[in-house]
Amino acid sequence: MNILIINGPNLNLLGVREKNIYGETSFDNYLEKLRKRFPDDTISYFQSNIEGDIIDKIHESGFGKVKGIILNAGAYTHTSLAIADAVSAVKAPVIEVHISNIFKRESVRHHSFIAPVCTGSISGFGLDSYRLAVEALKEL
Amino acid sequence: MNILIINGPNLNLLGVREKNIYGETSFDNYLEKLRKRFPDDTISYFQSNIEGDIIDKIHESGFGKVKGIILNAGAYTHTSLAIADAVSAVKAPVIEVHISNIFKRESVRHHSFIAPVCTGSISGFGLDSYRLAVEALKEL
Amino acid sequence: MNILIINGPNLNLLGVREKNIYGETSFDNYLEKLRKRFPDDTISYFQSNIEGDIIDKIHESGFGKVKGIILNAGAYTHTSLAIADAVSAVKAPVIEVHISNIFKRESVRHHSFIAPVCTGSISGFGLDSYRLAVEALKEL
Amino acid sequence: MNILIINGPNLNLLGVREKNIYGETSFDNYLEKLRKRFPDDTISYFQSNIEGDIIDKIHESGFGKVKGIILNAGAYTHTSLAIADAVSAVKAPVIEVHISNIFKRESVRHHSFIAPVCTGSISGFGLDSYRLAVEALKEL
Amino acid sequence: MNILIINGPNLNLLGVREKNIYGETSFDNYLEKLRKRFPDDTISYFQSNIEGDIIDKIHESGFGKVKGIILNAGAYTHTSLAIADAVSAVKAPVIEVHISNIFKRESVRHHSFIAPVCTGSISGFGLDSYRLAVEALKEL
Amino acid sequence: MNILIINGPNLNLLGVREKNIYGETSFDNYLEKLRKRFPDDTISYFQSNIEGDIIDKIHESGFGKVKGIILNAGAYTHTSLAIADAVSAVKAPVIEVHISNIFKRESVRHHSFIAPVCTGSISGFGLDSYRLAVEALKEL
Amino acid sequence: MNILIINGPNLNLLGVREKNIYGETSFDNYLEKLRKRFPDDTISYFQSNIEGDIIDKIHESGFGKVKGIILNAGAYTHTSLAIADAVSAVKAPVIEVHISNIFKRESVRHHSFIAPVCTGSISGFGLDSYRLAVEALKEL
Amino acid sequence: MNILIINGPNLNLLGVREKNIYGETSFDNYLEKLRKRFPDDTISYFQSNIEGDIIDKIHESGFGKVKGIILNAGAYTHTSLAIADAVSAVKAPVIEVHISNIFKRESVRHHSFIAPVCTGSISGFGLDSYRLAVEALKEL
Amino acid sequence: MNILIINGPNLNLLGVREKNIYGETSFDNYLEKLRKRFPDDTISYFQSNIEGDIIDKIHESGFGKVKGIILNAGAYTHTSLAIADAVSAVKAPVIEVHISNIFKRESVRHHSFIAPVCTGSISGFGLDSYRLAVEALKEL
Amino acid sequence: MNILIINGPNLNLLGVREKNIYGETSFDNYLEKLRKRFPDDTISYFQSNIEGDIIDKIHESGFGKVKGIILNAGAYTHTSLAIADAVSAVKAPVIEVHISNIFKRESVRHHSFIAPVCTGSISGFGLDSYRLAVEALKEL
Amino acid sequence: MNILIINGPNLNLLGVREKNIYGETSFDNYLEKLRKRFPDDTISYFQSNIEGDIIDKIHESGFGKVKGIILNAGAYTHTSLAIADAVSAVKAPVIEVHISNIFKRESVRHHSFIAPVCTGSISGFGLDSYRLAVEALKEL
Amino acid sequence: MNILIINGPNLNLLGVREKNIYGETSFDNYLEKLRKRFPDDTISYFQSNIEGDIIDKIHESGFGKVKGIILNAGAYTHTSLAIADAVSAVKAPVIEVHISNIFKRESVRHHSFIAPVCTGSISGFGLDSYRLAVEALKEL
Repeated sequence: MNILIINGPNLNLLGVREKNIYGETSFDNYLEKLRKRFPDDTISYFQSNIEGDIIDKIHESGFGKVKGIILNAGAYTHTSLAIADAVSAVKAPVIEVHISNIFKRESVRHHSFIAPVCTGSISGFGLDSYRLAVEALKEL
Repeated sequence: MNILIINGPNLNLLGVREKNIYGETSFDNYLEKLRKRFPDDTISYFQSNIEGDIIDKIHESGFGKVKGIILNAGAYTHTSLAIADAVSAVKAPVIEVHISNIFKRESVRHHSFIAPVCTGSISGFGLDSYRLAVEALKEL
Repeated sequence: MNILIINGPNLNLLGVREKNIYGETSFDNYLEKLRKRFPDDTISYFQSNIEGDIIDKIHESGFGKVKGIILNAGAYTHTSLAIADAVSAVKAPVIEVHISNIFKRESVRHHSFIAPVCTGSISGFGLDSYRLAVEALKEL
Repeated sequence: MNILIINGPNLNLLGVREKNIYGETSFDNYLEKLRKRFPDDTISYFQSNIEGDIIDKIHESGFGKVKGIILNAGAYTHTSLAIADAVSAVKAPVIEVHISNIFKRESVRHHSFIAPVCTGSISGFGLDSYRLAVEALKEL
Repeated sequence: MNILIINGPNLNLLGVREKNIYGETSFDNYLEKLRKRFPDDTISYFQSNIEGDIIDKIHESGFGKVKGIILNAGAYTHTSLAIADAVSAVKAPVIEVHISNIFKRESVRHHSFIAPVCTGSISGFGLDSYRLAVEALKEL
Repeated sequence: MNILIINGPNLNLLGVREKNIYGETSFDNYLEKLRKRFPDDTISYFQSNIEGDIIDKIHESGFGKVKGIILNAGAYTHTSLAIADAVSAVKAPVIEVHISNIFKRESVRHHSFIAPVCTGSISGFGLDSYRLAVEALKEL
Repeated sequence: MNILIINGPNLNLLGVREKNIYGETSFDNYLEKLRKRFPDDTISYFQSNIEGDIIDKIHESGFGKVKGIILNAGAYTHTSLAIADAVSAVKAPVIEVHISNIFKRESVRHHSFIAPVCTGSISGFGLDSYRLAVEALKEL
Repeated sequence: MNILIINGPNLNLLGVREKNIYGETSFDNYLEKLRKRFPDDTISYFQSNIEGDIIDKIHESGFGKVKGIILNAGAYTHTSLAIADAVSAVKAPVIEVHISNIFKRESVRHHSFIAPVCTGSISGFGLDSYRLAVEALKEL
Repeated sequence: MNILIINGPNLNLLGVREKNIYGETSFDNYLEKLRKRFPDDTISYFQSNIEGDIIDKIHESGFGKVKGIILNAGAYTHTSLAIADAVSAVKAPVIEVHISNIFKRESVRHHSFIAPVCTGSISGFGLDSYRLAVEALKEL
Repeated sequence: MNILIINGPNLNLLGVREKNIYGETSFDNYLEKLRKRFPDDTISYFQSNIEGDIIDKIHESGFGKVKGIILNAGAYTHTSLAIADAVSAVKAPVIEVHISNIFKRESVRHHSFIAPVCTGSISGFGLDSYRLAVEALKEL
Repeated sequence: MNILIINGPNLNLLGVREKNIYGETSFDNYLEKLRKRFPDDTISYFQSNIEGDIIDKIHESGFGKVKGIILNAGAYTHTSLAIADAVSAVKAPVIEVHISNIFKRESVRHHSFIAPVCTGSISGFGLDSYRLAVEALKEL
Repeated sequence: MNILIINGPNLNLLGVREKNIYGETSFDNYLEKLRKRFPDDTISYFQSNIEGDIIDKIHESGFGKVKGIILNAGAYTHTSLAIADAVSAVKAPVIEVHISNIFKRESVRHHSFIAPVCTGSISGFGLDSYRLAVEALKEL
């Protein structure tokens, strides 16, 4: 099964610098472990801080190239109707994930443009949210 | 691992009657499958339409009796600050689940009193949301 | 025709005590008169102050046991999404009634969770609102 | 008993044209049946698309000429404070009716200027809402 | 000096009927007294319950025919942007009057579409509000 | 092709008086030019300041008499749900036009009751907005 | 007749300085003319920029010392519930005046704490608003 | 003097478990001390997590059985219009108490359905709030 | 124990004039009785209608001079962030009191700037609210 | 006449894939037809999913290079103040177009940052909206 | 260059008491350093807790006596339209300063009545905000 | 001291074109003068219209490469939570600057996502705002 993980703005900082803020694990290390846990699946990865690049990637992958997309749109979750439109347009199921529980944070982060157009949503389990999203995609 | 699933109001109708609305599978059948999938864990189950009974159950279980609680509070998700206070009070981690993607439904269902006090939240994967919650609890 | 009348919180006080507030007629007396007016129909009655008990009653009756339900949910009209979900779930038509004109009262009572899921709504005619609801059910 | 039915804007289209939208029965046909059902009462009828004409009619009839007014103000229900003032001013009781359940429609139709100044309100029973209003007026 | 008084919806009831509500004096009687108080001025009068007729009258008079307009738009004060546009369009100064203090009434009457396009506003002095408006026009 | 142009409140003032406000061209002059530009089409014209008369005209024309309606409802655009209901009811396509860009004006003019029930909307091109609407109707 | 005029914050600048903003006439000059126009009445005057001093003055005068108070509370109109409470407490009628039409200004100036507790309100007539208020008080 | 203390949802946890959260004193211990401090009064106690049971208790006690009720409705303070209706219905004075200062907590806890129907309100003094309520009741 | 009572705007009128509004007892008389009830404590008193004078008094007393402050800020409760800042700044505990139940009054009085920065809040017990505040301070 | 059409996010999918959603015609095919319809004009085309690239293009073209810009900003219409600023800054007239009637869609799409800074706005005519915009530009 | 610094309510406590809250430096000490840093300028200082006194000071200084005013209105920033009117009225440029970053504090402190009428605004640099304001004034 | 200035969307037009709008000075000219004024500091400069490029630049510079960042995010100030997250993530202090006083402009520009995560904020001093920000950074 081909799966694409897309990370949005500022998520390139995960575990690389500012470990006290973003945790000890870099996303690359986590990705390695994740791939080991699902040896029969191909998990590709894309990160960008540019809203339009994320849209391009969703277009490029979402019409048959991958079976499902796992999307952590970071702050664009709360401001980007354009990414939400891209998610609506493609055929592949898209699952929204968040590392932290966004409902514990400031109120601007309680509204998601992405959530209503995704298949489902997983948040609050740290990096394990991505693993759960893979589990979910495999069962769909 | 001892896990408790709590279902709130109207979820007793799942798969028993009105199958076109609530799906073919009754929750009892689903529970049986779920227990088979996790043979090493003990999964107990409680359903009530009464807000206060759900609070009582959370109190009774959340101080050591179970390792984690999976809570689908149904419509109380959106109206019960009292259940949210119970979740905050207990020691056991509580995971919010929803069968449907609540963000696709009417706007009154977009706000959750429960979400900000739970460890994490999973919604939109049908009954599989419960399985993912078990997966998540086991990894915590 | 089997008809069920459900009264919600505080409506047990009708005409029994505090007659200056709730009117001279107790609901039991009124019910007797109502039954005499519709001698060919069976009108059963249920009152509870507990939200979940009202949900249970709707479930129990709404799948064939009665032809229609007349529901005065009292203050739960304005706060209970869970009762509204129960009304949506059952097959029997449900008619919302109110003794007073709720739009003449405080603004919190202008919004009804129940109204959008009922067949129709009747308010402001005193106890006669229940009689009109029976009339309506018989014509459906 | 003299009763006046007033229909507001666009209700002249009922059953005459666009039957798929407004139902098979024209209001004239319905009125004929209604008059047969209440042979001892005189039911007069007025329809206008002009807000001020409805106010004039309420003034003209509401000071003794009729025993009660049944008012379906159509879209003016939600925008006309002036009709509400006319209802407040006259002596005759006024009953608000709606053919459809307005609470199932767009949110702009959930607020009624008319409801707080009427004796009572009946909505959602199709054309039968008018018959129930006659029943209600006779009991007042 | 030529002055036009325009009264909006329901103001035809003033002092004619329902004297306990609208006061003892009919507007015709008041107008007679007002004309005596200002013998050198010509005060004409127009009342309509129809929004568009009030607009027509403002157009007809406001381009030179009268020196000023005194407008009590009744409930249209709070709902008619179209009358406000007519007031903006004409050359004659328009003064808003209200018999009662509209700020003591329900909140829907606190907002006026008419006020921002008038020269000035006088409210709360009973019928004397009209006399004050004449005084004000003469001083402009 | 039969086309009807309907102008709402205050639009009778266009170019007739207050030319500095409404422009040099009267709507009659403009209409003449418009008819010359589309010699094969019959363009009829109706203006009223009365909301209900506009509704009557829409009813009268919208069931087959004309191929399309061009509607500039003036200030009623922002306050009349009743005209919107009339537009929804008829079969003929209705196109909303505005002479000025309503989004550059006060915020009360940013919301249109008419827009969501029209086929399309054209605003901001001065009187040329009407010509563009004719162009659009011919292409439908 | 004893009448007290109270002017609130910044109104001491009227006509003294910044004449392009506040007009050519100082309030003292205007007061002189006003007193000449009403030779049989005693018009006293008080101005303060301190909210509490205005309250003190209302208390001191409003229990019999003057027949009526004319109050231009300036910016405190929109922020001072305490002055409104003082107006409510005293026996003397209080009339709200404003020099400019406050509804033409920023939206924060559209709400008045003072208006609902005054007898009446006059705004938009320049300094002549005070004269109209004297006229109104004499007629009460 | 007979006094009833009613505690709402989650208040059964006070001092029993989670002492770091709810304080060292259990409510039973506190009650004992309170009874000693008022040896001439009978202080009964009721706790429930069920909204409807609290309503039942208020009905049962509020018509003569006790002289006054001290009500800490916990989270139901902010969500239960039904308990507020029960408080309105009974004859006995009801005093609202809160252990913590609810205005220092999240904004959802700033609004109380209970406060406007109680005689008075006491919050922020820890368990001593109950003692102050007894003091208040004795003085009424 | 040294205690300071501060009363805000308009509270100087208590019981002195307008007894039907403010009650029969003047605050001076009440203060005498209060001092007799607590003979071992020194209760000083300050009243001002000036926001800044109340701030000055809080500064002057709140750094050691008194053990606690009882503050009835009157209408400033709802408008003065500056008094709230003064309360936050001082060391002495401050208790908010209100004579009437502010939640039964207009909605502008439901929000308090003072409440979140006080130790606790007591309202609705008439002048006895002050006595309860003294009781509370002595127990802190 | 040189005209530039700019399409925003997701509009690259038009007619290429997902034809059931976006229509049968690709924008390239449509563009060919459009150019044929206006053989004397040069119509250039730019599409990007990146907000900043659209701003760059507007800067580059809007100072003399083209006579007018036709802008369909897609979802950025509702979220991009930065594109609106770019439109304000350039000299060339900009016309807003939308393929669908945005007022029939979710409420987030009813507000446009772009509309108030454009010359005019055309929406709801399918791809023909672009042709009408060219017609409009040629007449300016 | 003559410069006036005005500090509003509670800013008299700076560095004098509660040093852990307000910092170690008293404003007098800071002022001394500031004057040394700008030896060629005369920096006068005024502090008051009374809104009206601040208005008086702005009037007295703002018509020529000083070249510029630096205003930290403390909590009045967020509640005083009257001080904002005073700032608008005077000729001298006024610069708003805040010691802390007001946008990091409670939401009531995010809105400033003062900001829109000042030349510019500086916040968040501790006491250095005043120095930057002097720098800014010298460059104007 | 190494300082980075980042300018957001449309700020590339400053002084280059449309000088009547953006002022006579290009930012390059201004930068030259600024560097001369601070000869001991290295001031680098970055401008982009792309949100994600600004985020990349903040990441690249904010972990040690520069001592401080001066950020004028233009319209992204009001719409970009993602840039705000980048500012929060880096170690370097960030100062928000605006050329104009944003509080004098439309209300959408009164809210800043950037302000609460910056050290401080300076607006309204024209290009001199940047110089003041350098002054501020040097004093931190």
